[in-house]
Amino acid sequence: MDARPIGVFDSGLGGLTAVKELSRILPEENIVYFGDTGRVPYGSRSREILRKYTRQDINFLLSQNVKMILAACGTVSSTAPDILQSVGVPATGVIFPTAQAAASATRNGKIGIIGTTATIRSGSYRRELEKIDPALSVYEKDCPLFVPLVESGFVDDNDEITLLTAQRYLSGLRESGVDTLIMGCTHYPIISRIISKVMGGGVTLIDSGRETALWAARALRESGLLAEGGGERSFFVSDYVENFSQIAEIFLGCNILSDVQRIDIEKY
Amino acid sequence: MDARPIGVFDSGLGGLTAVKELSRILPEENIVYFGDTGRVPYGSRSREILRKYTRQDINFLLSQNVKMILAACGTVSSTAPDILQSVGVPATGVIFPTAQAAASATRNGKIGIIGTTATIRSGSYRRELEKIDPALSVYEKDCPLFVPLVESGFVDDNDEITLLTAQRYLSGLRESGVDTLIMGCTHYPIISRIISKVMGGGVTLIDSGRETALWAARALRESGLLAEGGGERSFFVSDYVENFSQIAEIFLGCNILSDVQRIDIEKY
Repeated sequence: MDARPIGVFDSGLGGLTAVKELSRILPEENIVYFGDTGRVPYGSRSREILRKYTRQDINFLLSQNVKMILAACGTVSSTAPDILQSVGVPATGVIFPTAQAAASATRNGKIGIIGTTATIRSGSYRRELEKIDPALSVYEKDCPLFVPLVESGFVDDNDEITLLTAQRYLSGLRESGVDTLIMGCTHYPIISRIISKVMGGGVTLIDSGRETALWAARALRESGLLAEGGGERSFFVSDYVENFSQIAEIFLGCNILSDVQRIDIEKY
Repeated sequence: MDARPIGVFDSGLGGLTAVKELSRILPEENIVYFGDTGRVPYGSRSREILRKYTRQDINFLLSQNVKMILAACGTVSSTAPDILQSVGVPATGVIFPTAQAAASATRNGKIGIIGTTATIRSGSYRRELEKIDPALSVYEKDCPLFVPLVESGFVDDNDEITLLTAQRYLSGLRESGVDTLIMGCTHYPIISRIISKVMGGGVTLIDSGRETALWAARALRESGLLAEGGGERSFFVSDYVENFSQIAEIFLGCNILSDVQRIDIEKY
């Protein structure tokens, strides 16, 4: 038993979808979340700057005495896996658990991947899938408008603009016959019903936040590090952003404005 | 006559639309552009951080011996006008020249303003218009998806998604009967034909980049500071970003990748 919190970080607030899944699966765990809202988006930064940011984000979480670190950010997961592996506590990005789940879910061996332009360009999901099973066929598409559409609240299942955008982005993947689709960005589960409508009901959607939470639950259980009777959540950001409260609510399903503290991440 | 360059800065690459207009109107001027691509977007930062960034951006341009500074960024113009007024060389944000042009253009006294959420929330265009003429009626609407739509290249005059988004954003402004619309964001001129299609041909669109370039031309002419026979342009960014070259080309109409230098803006 270990009452120390689980640390979760992301470039912004999207990682709250992973926190929501963690709380659901492991309601007794304490969680510390850091959203680097002052330096978002990571997806368009250079490799060198991204690695510096990753080290600072991890240092902050370690200062909060966490027992595990989850990088709920595709860009960090793909750009700095070596940094994640050397933090001194169990840690993972989203890539490994998500790719594992997709490889288990597919029946026809055809897997699609959608994400930000930076995540798709990095080829990280593709490489992880090919490591798991070289016989898999992988199809990729970047969907850069999905994040701003979600943050604009265009998330209703029948939203015409989001539906048209999804059709434009996803028609190629649908035609390729994938039976499994990795949502390689923490924002995408919010519009999963629209994505599913375009892809068709036969396609299994893999949610990277959920799979990472499941990985954490398994790892803690196997090493006897589960907590009991906690369930406290602390939220930290590097800047108070416009619409913070509404956007956090889109991801987390509840209002956390009163529990959020701002830190100076450049000090870590 | 003064051969020193004009300094232009923006949070990202949108300010290149102002550079394009400057080059067209004043082809003999030397121009130094700084795009803070490493810390974009400014629109969602807190006031305190924005003012720090503004000071650093100005210090960099002054280190390049500029004779004038143009903040081609609505957020800076509205959050730090006092900083712009105390830099020691003529300087302006986009707000003042743009509001002046709109007040001159309207016939029925009804002016619309569109921009990022931060620009609209700041109320800066509204205040400037009310200072110029308290009898003006001002109507505002934030259009947060326009920037990512432009940067995704969804800019064809017949693009269904951009057209639908424009219709959703602008229907209220159209119904209010404005005859003049301020495009309060340097990205918007790229989709001005779509905006015009939605608003109707009777509505005059005011381009903040163009008006700021016209202000610069007038100010240099009046003070005898025009250059002769220059026309050199230097581009600086704080990070090399994904798609830099394509996005710069959308704004500037030509490829500048080979002329761009990266600087460490935190040193200024």
